[in-house]
Amino acid sequence: MHFADKLYGRISSTGSRIVIGIDPDPRRLLAPDSKFRGAFPGKSDEYLLDAFCSTVIEIAQAYACAVKPQAAFFESMGILGWKALASCIQNARRHGIPVILDAKRGDIGHTASAYAQAYLHPESEFFADALTVNPYLGPDTLEPFVAMAKRNGCGLFVLVKTSNPGSCAFQDLKVVDRPEEAPGSVAAKVAEAVDSLGRSNIGTSGFSNIGAVVGATYPEHLELMRQIMPKAVFLVPGYGAQGGTPDDVKPAFYPDGTGAVVASSRGIIFAYESHPNPDHADILEAMAKAAEKARDDINSATIAST
Amino acid sequence: MHFADKLYGRISSTGSRIVIGIDPDPRRLLAPDSKFRGAFPGKSDEYLLDAFCSTVIEIAQAYACAVKPQAAFFESMGILGWKALASCIQNARRHGIPVILDAKRGDIGHTASAYAQAYLHPESEFFADALTVNPYLGPDTLEPFVAMAKRNGCGLFVLVKTSNPGSCAFQDLKVVDRPEEAPGSVAAKVAEAVDSLGRSNIGTSGFSNIGAVVGATYPEHLELMRQIMPKAVFLVPGYGAQGGTPDDVKPAFYPDGTGAVVASSRGIIFAYESHPNPDHADILEAMAKAAEKARDDINSATIAST
Repeated sequence: MHFADKLYGRISSTGSRIVIGIDPDPRRLLAPDSKFRGAFPGKSDEYLLDAFCSTVIEIAQAYACAVKPQAAFFESMGILGWKALASCIQNARRHGIPVILDAKRGDIGHTASAYAQAYLHPESEFFADALTVNPYLGPDTLEPFVAMAKRNGCGLFVLVKTSNPGSCAFQDLKVVDRPEEAPGSVAAKVAEAVDSLGRSNIGTSGFSNIGAVVGATYPEHLELMRQIMPKAVFLVPGYGAQGGTPDDVKPAFYPDGTGAVVASSRGIIFAYESHPNPDHADILEAMAKAAEKARDDINSATIAST
Repeated sequence: MHFADKLYGRISSTGSRIVIGIDPDPRRLLAPDSKFRGAFPGKSDEYLLDAFCSTVIEIAQAYACAVKPQAAFFESMGILGWKALASCIQNARRHGIPVILDAKRGDIGHTASAYAQAYLHPESEFFADALTVNPYLGPDTLEPFVAMAKRNGCGLFVLVKTSNPGSCAFQDLKVVDRPEEAPGSVAAKVAEAVDSLGRSNIGTSGFSNIGAVVGATYPEHLELMRQIMPKAVFLVPGYGAQGGTPDDVKPAFYPDGTGAVVASSRGIIFAYESHPNPDHADILEAMAKAAEKARDDINSATIAST
């Protein structure tokens, strides 16, 4: 099945445009005095990691259109982390939840193919529904990912404009391709490449399997990006803990509420930390409440008028 | 010890400016009829991977200033690959060979810190001497890597100008940000950021621990980049199999032969494939011969006049 269609199926069935980020930060989760550890006395780190991912997946089943495991946090725990990532991806997919692996990979030619093999091939332990990729090396380096994604019903989200304060340094540089051309930004040139790479694989939803990461912290960019990449699903980070509001994400969406999904991580997955002494039921309840609120806030900002 | 000093110590003791890339491409190495498998009849994939990495490390001990494991190939083999990568890194370091992990990571804030924790922290199973990083997200996203590298005597190589044909698409875009200034390229702006990030940690060798990846396939860029980043060690890919010649890499070096190291992978590590039916001794000999030639070619092109 086409990735965008899979995602839109989930958006219909859950009524949610929220992608829950799974960021198992070991400093917050595995510290001796962590509140999560407190809910599972005497359990190993391995157990806690799996319990955390399973808990988030349980919440995502009801309140999210997809989950987005952040590779970096898993990688920071070595082999233990990689095993937990494999379980997490497989568990979410078993529950029918699309998995967007946030690994921001990118490399040239045969090396890019190896990354695609690692994350977008059905025989891999880490087979995900979609992968985030970094475009700096050039559009030719995205092609092995594009080919593998198309073959296996997967998606890509290409970093276009990120949500961090310093994203302006290179992404917003004004550039000209040819002297007679009006200047655009680097991010706009990347967006043109994303649009072009995605045109050959549009699903019945009307969207391509090649999406774009465009941060919620720069609403004025979202509007321009929406114009340059009409067929791309936007993965919008920066909502919640990073400062983006529901109104900020609005320009990523079409008036009918399609066109984007909004990532939220810490605001949901660590919501239980405000509880003085949570047990597993309290953890589930706090995550559910935060996820439900995020879902409703985004829906009312983006589809209020329909 | 400062990373650049460690690297220059190795260059002195081995007389080599070659970094051998460890690219255990499973299609070439683990195929049922692969020549490498033929040299170890009846052995498991796990055994073959470790044997391949150990063989390259044995060659590197004599002929290379560092090794550069390519994360993508290890990642493409799942948990098996990650275990092999941990062994490979630890084995090379045990032999006193600096390890430059080519993983091209990059992400924002706390996520970048998690990647730095994964590869530049002494307690990690994947602790390397240096890591390649991708600058697209902005200089602020490199800072967690810079801080961790400085703390642990590690280095970074920031992608500036890569060796692939499409690297021009974004890296060579002409910047028109400041009208009074002569327009530079995006890669030149990245190079300025690399120079600035590296100024605070110069070793006794005179070089910073923050280096740059600048491809050998664009010699005219090498010269300009050498001017913008006078204190950065250049990691120059694209030599050999990718088409760069010894003369092409010359502008990366200062006249005294310092300033750069040259990566070569496939031309060395798969040199045995031209042998009809190699045993382990033949494999070692073919790799040694190719590595020795690469070392001598680079030395005679870059330090001929001294």
